[in-house]
Amino acid sequence: MNGKQAAGERALDYIEDGMVVGLGTGSTVFYFLQALSKKVAEGLQVTGVVTSIQTAKLAEELNIPLMDLNDVKVIDVCVDGADEIYTESGHIYGIKGGGGALLFEKLVAETAKMRIWIADDAKVVSHLGAFGLPVEVVQFGYMQVFQQLTAKGYAPKQRLNEDDTPYTTDSGNYLLDLQFEPITDPISLATELKMMTGVVEHGLFNDITEVTIIADATGSAMVTEI
Amino acid sequence: MNGKQAAGERALDYIEDGMVVGLGTGSTVFYFLQALSKKVAEGLQVTGVVTSIQTAKLAEELNIPLMDLNDVKVIDVCVDGADEIYTESGHIYGIKGGGGALLFEKLVAETAKMRIWIADDAKVVSHLGAFGLPVEVVQFGYMQVFQQLTAKGYAPKQRLNEDDTPYTTDSGNYLLDLQFEPITDPISLATELKMMTGVVEHGLFNDITEVTIIADATGSAMVTEI
Repeated sequence: MNGKQAAGERALDYIEDGMVVGLGTGSTVFYFLQALSKKVAEGLQVTGVVTSIQTAKLAEELNIPLMDLNDVKVIDVCVDGADEIYTESGHIYGIKGGGGALLFEKLVAETAKMRIWIADDAKVVSHLGAFGLPVEVVQFGYMQVFQQLTAKGYAPKQRLNEDDTPYTTDSGNYLLDLQFEPITDPISLATELKMMTGVVEHGLFNDITEVTIIADATGSAMVTEI
Repeated sequence: MNGKQAAGERALDYIEDGMVVGLGTGSTVFYFLQALSKKVAEGLQVTGVVTSIQTAKLAEELNIPLMDLNDVKVIDVCVDGADEIYTESGHIYGIKGGGGALLFEKLVAETAKMRIWIADDAKVVSHLGAFGLPVEVVQFGYMQVFQQLTAKGYAPKQRLNEDDTPYTTDSGNYLLDLQFEPITDPISLATELKMMTGVVEHGLFNDITEVTIIADATGSAMVTEI
């Protein structure tokens, strides 16, 4: 068992009958969905709210019942991965968006009463920023935003598909990946980026999670609740 | 001559040979474009940067040369309308977005060295908010944003097309029109709205304009520069 699988399966501890469950995106969430699917097959009643087209397809294959975020009043718990996790004096900060779904992930997470991040221990960092911080920008005139970010010293790089065409998100926007190494103040950086005209969202998730489940390659998982 | 036409034609005073000109959207800009087109036909060299698909079509019909916002280094002057204009101690605040183009309008305006608003005198108000403040939101899960705005007491109303289908912007987002009457603090409201996850942009334009040209039905135009 790898760390991702161990963390994904451990998250099942938080899922109870009748819950509305936010379903994250990515390779660790994949294992959570597989484990959840088995429970559903055994009779567990849950309703999933997806964070990407990718997860919607997977959940449908796995026979997990789904509901649109527009149609739910509340999400009981949201389970998602993270690309970097940094914990400091009772706060959990993270970078998400490696899979490109940061906007929908944040919308679902903010609708949830409890949020759980699942990850292998390679995602735990002593400072944020080595991963690259995704910023979702509208296509129109995005080069102006690109140049503003360059002028700030944030070294944006447009995310591309394998065929070198621009990567577009599920909302039809572009992604610019910023380089910091390190991010010293995630709170003020989040405000600075979100306030820019043309920026739809960014991958900084500050204090949007109450639980982390971090597992190593031996399958041993450490659960932290704040 | 109506006020819109008088204001639109007066803006020509600010257009010089060789300029890159931001072209706003709406019924007052229509008259500016017609006047500009005549000057272009007479030999004036300008390059337009449009703020909507609607203006792009109009400018092409009028033979005004265009360039994409991504490809310009700077815009010399931007001429646009406004739905409400409020001036207080050297600051010009406004509401834009009645035509649905607020996002592209703000992107173009922020790239411009000088910004001019043209309007008939009915647009000048003693406080902002009677018009309704448009907020552009991503389609995914927008009902969560709608409910948050309702809880704040901002009475959102989704903008619809004439056939009652949701109005979508040129970026594929929805518009929610908020009701305040009046807006007491446009600066803090702008921050509050832009910081919400799912909000792409809003129609408050605070200190994004240096010149207003306000004309009445007699064709008399008052120019204010700050």
